[in-house]
Amino acid sequence: MSERIIITLGRQFGSGGREIGKRVAKELGIAFYDKELLTRAAKESGISEELFQSNDEKPTNSLLYSLAMSNFSGEMPLNHRIFLAQFDVIKKIAKEESCVIVGRCADYALRDYRNVANVFVHADMEYRLDRAINLYGLPEKSARGIILRTDKQRANYYNFYTNKKWGSVDSYDFAIDSGSVGVDNTVALIKDFALIRAGRK
Amino acid sequence: MSERIIITLGRQFGSGGREIGKRVAKELGIAFYDKELLTRAAKESGISEELFQSNDEKPTNSLLYSLAMSNFSGEMPLNHRIFLAQFDVIKKIAKEESCVIVGRCADYALRDYRNVANVFVHADMEYRLDRAINLYGLPEKSARGIILRTDKQRANYYNFYTNKKWGSVDSYDFAIDSGSVGVDNTVALIKDFALIRAGRK
Repeated sequence: MSERIIITLGRQFGSGGREIGKRVAKELGIAFYDKELLTRAAKESGISEELFQSNDEKPTNSLLYSLAMSNFSGEMPLNHRIFLAQFDVIKKIAKEESCVIVGRCADYALRDYRNVANVFVHADMEYRLDRAINLYGLPEKSARGIILRTDKQRANYYNFYTNKKWGSVDSYDFAIDSGSVGVDNTVALIKDFALIRAGRK
Repeated sequence: MSERIIITLGRQFGSGGREIGKRVAKELGIAFYDKELLTRAAKESGISEELFQSNDEKPTNSLLYSLAMSNFSGEMPLNHRIFLAQFDVIKKIAKEESCVIVGRCADYALRDYRNVANVFVHADMEYRLDRAINLYGLPEKSARGIILRTDKQRANYYNFYTNKKWGSVDSYDFAIDSGSVGVDNTVALIKDFALIRAGRK
């Protein structure tokens, strides 16, 4: 009954997923990894942190792109190496401690781990536009485009590296519209779900 | 704060969605509609209940099929008439009383109603096969085929009549894998969500 609490959290841009994940981690008193994952993966892989940042959740696009990235050197393309370094760090973290890990196909990296709570946070466009403009400070004119582009990128990345589909209910144990009940209630419901999933409740 | 509690519940075949919905309704002390909807729609529309049964959540297939159903008489095809009769009954019920309504595009019928909790219950194939064979008594040999075919039919029906996609997180406020935490916990989490959504918690 002292199972670790491991939460992976996918999220639509503007849904508040990052903030929600952070609060879930804080209230449960467990670690939180979003960009923090990149720093650690960079340190442990020897690849520079800047390269992790610029390749973060970016899809591979095409074989041609992969070939270009590999510079015809026969080495594995950089974006794949970065993905695998993240993968290793995610698995290591989940073995060490209870945590919330945002994005980066963590659900797939941990698919053989017991009792991981794979959560997805989404919201309708109106709610996400409001957050993107008024909380994240995106320009009103370009907010919708940025939201759609970012989600497209996350979907491509996820669909490329996993055998699942980003944003399909089947890919998650628990998916919630943060706009339907607000951030506080979403935090509470995810906490409940994760505690049950870990056999703590 | 005395908002009605309206829960629409989509479900994958074998996920236990019907049983879960029934228990949620019972524990909240509110009405439950699954096949019961057909009986009432038949009564109120004057179309025979047998026709409701045989057209229940069946997709329209094609224009050709629709034309055949309409018997070239210029009348609206029977399957559309049945769909619309159900639609009317769903809206009427949700105006009258707190309830759980299973399937039949109820989320779409009630899209202009306030604070409806649109829930989806799913589970992985292994869990659904186990339920289908050991609880519903389906033959082991054909269970997988029946599960896939039934879900395909529900998806086609939903995608045809609504502007949403069956099984996509965007189509629901709350989606849960009943296999990940079991039926009892799924019931409890849906109850919580619906009470919050209705402003009762």
